[in-house]
Amino acid sequence: MKYGIVLFPAKKLQDLANSYRKRYDPHYALIPPHLTLKTPFEASDEEIKAISKELRSVANKLSPIKLEVQKISSFSPVNNVIYLKVEPNDELMELHTELHSGSLTSEPEYSFVPHITIGQKLSDAEMADVLGQLKMQDNHHIELIDRFHLLYQLDNGAWTVYETFILEKGEL
Amino acid sequence: MKYGIVLFPAKKLQDLANSYRKRYDPHYALIPPHLTLKTPFEASDEEIKAISKELRSVANKLSPIKLEVQKISSFSPVNNVIYLKVEPNDELMELHTELHSGSLTSEPEYSFVPHITIGQKLSDAEMADVLGQLKMQDNHHIELIDRFHLLYQLDNGAWTVYETFILEKGEL
Repeated sequence: MKYGIVLFPAKKLQDLANSYRKRYDPHYALIPPHLTLKTPFEASDEEIKAISKELRSVANKLSPIKLEVQKISSFSPVNNVIYLKVEPNDELMELHTELHSGSLTSEPEYSFVPHITIGQKLSDAEMADVLGQLKMQDNHHIELIDRFHLLYQLDNGAWTVYETFILEKGEL
Repeated sequence: MKYGIVLFPAKKLQDLANSYRKRYDPHYALIPPHLTLKTPFEASDEEIKAISKELRSVANKLSPIKLEVQKISSFSPVNNVIYLKVEPNDELMELHTELHSGSLTSEPEYSFVPHITIGQKLSDAEMADVLGQLKMQDNHHIELIDRFHLLYQLDNGAWTVYETFILEKGEL
């Protein structure tokens, strides 16, 4: 079965992202707006139990993460993807590192550029047009995120949450 | 913000349910196949923290739940809804009761008929036709579910998971 690990921003930023995704992201109906922490990987039912246990121990030792968006950016010309750029910070990078270490070791597909996708699979012309419009707007946003989610993919491509992990370093 | 509480069956049953929902359920893209334990309710950010704490304590004292589907049924003529009928059992009824007691007290909208919706908002003719076809098939299924989920609704009607609660009576 295919699994992935993401952060969901709070409702406000999800609603904002969806206002773009509805038009520009063919994955709009498959998963809520998210920041991918670990790209899809295969695991058996047995393996995922061990992974889940490992994720609980990761979550227990980490603190909530500041999620700050300052601007809209793109992976063009490599990929016609438009996204809310999330400013890297120590807590976020540490969580990403933990999710690719120890029994969770895997080579990230790309170097980690924290982002929330709002458009993809656009034509070059669409891309330039949309990006030009969006860059004019103020998309500054800041929030504190205290949890991440392990998801699995259904046959239709949609993702269901398997488990939530709460970042609670220092809490009971 | 609007919250709800559901069980997600495992991938196999979700895939089966989606094979019907794709055609017959306008909520197909808004939420994965699920069994509703508590219908949508309003809660503030503060309230949901207390509710979440209460749900953790409920989950800690309950055991995993057998989910058994024997047949397809419908709420017709009251509602043109087709669903996988989930056989009631003590564990499931107990969880439902806990989610409507103490600080979680609320009047359930209907008497609790555990089910996984696979079609809704059908015309009478569609309804009779689809139900007739589905009833000929063998939809028997059984699994053990060890978790439930608290979700919130976005402006577009889609649901995002806020937190997972693991039924772990007797576990560490």
